Amino acid sequence: MPNRKIPAPTVNRLSLYLKYFSELTSQGVEYISSGQVAEKMGLNPAQVRKDLAYFGKFGRRGFGYGVEQLKQEISKILGTHRQWRLAVIGTGNLGRALLMYQGFLSRGFKPVAGFDVDPDKVGWELDGVHIYHFDELEKVIKSQKIDIVIITTPKASLDGVMERLKGSGVKGVLNFAGKHLLEAEGIAVRNVDLAIELEQLTFSMTNKES
Amino acid sequence: MPNRKIPAPTVNRLSLYLKYFSELTSQGVEYISSGQVAEKMGLNPAQVRKDLAYFGKFGRRGFGYGVEQLKQEISKILGTHRQWRLAVIGTGNLGRALLMYQGFLSRGFKPVAGFDVDPDKVGWELDGVHIYHFDELEKVIKSQKIDIVIITTPKASLDGVMERLKGSGVKGVLNFAGKHLLEAEGIAVRNVDLAIELEQLTFSMTNKES
Repeated sequence: MPNRKIPAPTVNRLSLYLKYFSELTSQGVEYISSGQVAEKMGLNPAQVRKDLAYFGKFGRRGFGYGVEQLKQEISKILGTHRQWRLAVIGTGNLGRALLMYQGFLSRGFKPVAGFDVDPDKVGWELDGVHIYHFDELEKVIKSQKIDIVIITTPKASLDGVMERLKGSGVKGVLNFAGKHLLEAEGIAVRNVDLAIELEQLTFSMTNKES
Repeated sequence: MPNRKIPAPTVNRLSLYLKYFSELTSQGVEYISSGQVAEKMGLNPAQVRKDLAYFGKFGRRGFGYGVEQLKQEISKILGTHRQWRLAVIGTGNLGRALLMYQGFLSRGFKPVAGFDVDPDKVGWELDGVHIYHFDELEKVIKSQKIDIVIITTPKASLDGVMERLKGSGVKGVLNFAGKHLLEAEGIAVRNVDLAIELEQLTFSMTNKES
């Protein structure tokens, strides 16, 4: 698989390229040069050429890169050429924000269920998405064909939630619970830590000031 | 400044090292080897040694790295050795979740104000943080000494918000508004796009499956 050789920082940039190329196709732009991509995205042109070279020989001298073809190729590599069905476990402020996040559906991620243990939350619908009791987790994952679970529970509940997810059919977990999770057997994990976003920002601020 | 030479992927990992080293010092661990760091964090030991080499010669043969010293050095580089005062503009579900996010204060980020235009939200307190009308933005940024603003408004409001922030004294913006912002003069910007977190997850899932 050529995918395996793509370095992590390039994988990070793939999402940014995909977003930009999607904008371009919706504007009817057919070809773009690596220099234009670099300028628009604030990257080094040599880096852009190196990144785009992972997807094959799409550049045509004098024309640039075919935007639609690149877009489709990156979608396939990221796995976003299909739709994924999401559930959110924990429907506090953050969980509800994620269930109703406007940026998911257009990118191929469809929220279909929420889970909570709080009787005040169970039974509600948010933008047409039902909140189930956590006791029904395995049953609903199967009936709703849920691929990905977003966890926003308190830290203390995280291990218990992961135990229930093993063997449930869920293939990926996005973890907002504030405690680092390693990959579980058969389940890919990505840890989100919002304080890291602020630390990366203060790194830029500190270097800008000095 | 040596900081300027640190490559972006290393800066990304600095936050992870900082978190791990903070855990270790709270457990009373004084020294650690690059092999142990690599194993715990799922990284390559050579990469860890290379990353840590950016902060100077802290490794002592037979002892490993001095955890406290590394932690302080990384904090200084990231700019988290001091406390930063935050405001959140837009107090919908996501904005409220961020104002009350448990993971910020312990990492040096103190939410001190919220802003909204909705009369149903203005005037409330969330965990002791007052929600002001957006009209009062510049005044409150000065009186509350706000360094960083987190934006969770709709996309359409983003340019207007940025215009108001220029010259306000704010030095950094964390942008959740779902539209890419470039650096403004004097204001560092970091764009957060939660769909990217899901795309990076489906990349791992797709490669795992194949």
